[in-house]
Amino acid sequence: MERQYKAGMDGTEAFESRGNDVTVANPKTVRSSDFLLRLLALALTLVAAIVLGVAKETQTVALTVVPTLPPLNVPVTAKWQYMSAFVYFVVTNAIACAYATLSLVLSIANRGGKSGLALMLIILDLVMVALLFSGNGAAAAVGVLGYRGNSHVRWNKVCNIFGVYCRHIAASIVLSLLGSLVFFLLVVLSALNLHKKSP
Amino acid sequence: MERQYKAGMDGTEAFESRGNDVTVANPKTVRSSDFLLRLLALALTLVAAIVLGVAKETQTVALTVVPTLPPLNVPVTAKWQYMSAFVYFVVTNAIACAYATLSLVLSIANRGGKSGLALMLIILDLVMVALLFSGNGAAAAVGVLGYRGNSHVRWNKVCNIFGVYCRHIAASIVLSLLGSLVFFLLVVLSALNLHKKSP
Repeated sequence: MERQYKAGMDGTEAFESRGNDVTVANPKTVRSSDFLLRLLALALTLVAAIVLGVAKETQTVALTVVPTLPPLNVPVTAKWQYMSAFVYFVVTNAIACAYATLSLVLSIANRGGKSGLALMLIILDLVMVALLFSGNGAAAAVGVLGYRGNSHVRWNKVCNIFGVYCRHIAASIVLSLLGSLVFFLLVVLSALNLHKKSP
Repeated sequence: MERQYKAGMDGTEAFESRGNDVTVANPKTVRSSDFLLRLLALALTLVAAIVLGVAKETQTVALTVVPTLPPLNVPVTAKWQYMSAFVYFVVTNAIACAYATLSLVLSIANRGGKSGLALMLIILDLVMVALLFSGNGAAAAVGVLGYRGNSHVRWNKVCNIFGVYCRHIAASIVLSLLGSLVFFLLVVLSALNLHKKSP
């Protein structure tokens, strides 16, 4: 009789706890969406860094050295290393990519749900949001200058000459922006998850 | 006798709940630090926007129009409206400042601790982190170009001419960076707070 009663208690408890999980947040769904988002962030930041990293274009530019002589045709190469904003952009994407890999491993290791590690991941995700958005801003600002130029400071546009290079930059910025939005989403999901768990 | 017992129960309960609050998180401390940080973010983004907004410098620049004639002395003005990155920077700081004001009001109104509003504030704080960091990145990238120039794309430095203007920009970027770190801290504190509350 006692055994039956105990079994009944256990059954009720199990049911109650399962019921709670459904209304609070399905941990399996949360974990797999977290895993997929981290994988997506890894891929996006990796491809963004590579697309800008391999961008290199050489064009022959007519250069006036002495005003009275005809212009010289000089081969000029455009590389990401030549512009500090692009170097920063590639570095931020590489850091975010490395972190995404590390966090994937940590989030798989954290299946048990150690809450200290989960909190550390939220804060580091937030650092990545800040880092990637500053890198995107820097690259986009220089990209706009290259595309349109600025007559006030007499900086000529260069995208009319280095068209392929500029398209690489634009694609890379879009990819990195998507990557930073994934990190943004990871922080939002973690906050929602913590919020649902809190009383 | 019953009244005494009840009073005793009330007293014990009050003590317990106070004890709980100290170990979990003192709501008064959390609320006042949240209030102070929002006030600080408001002040920093406001001053950052104003410092760049009022920055304007006119200098006489020797301009060579025809190579055979002596250069002309032309007055040239530097303004934030002339550079799209600075316009974006001022707009992001203005948005962050307006949001900081609104969130101050909301966080005072939310003394009762409605959790839906608290969650909305975390997400909007996060949006401000992303927005401000992208604005800082953009302004810093153009600031570095103005300070050092770039020989590869033949963009000359301008900070040797517009010294006061460049110092305004640098000060504004530092203020805005501090402002964005305050928003960063607000998100971290909210996450810590939710984390402490969750079982």
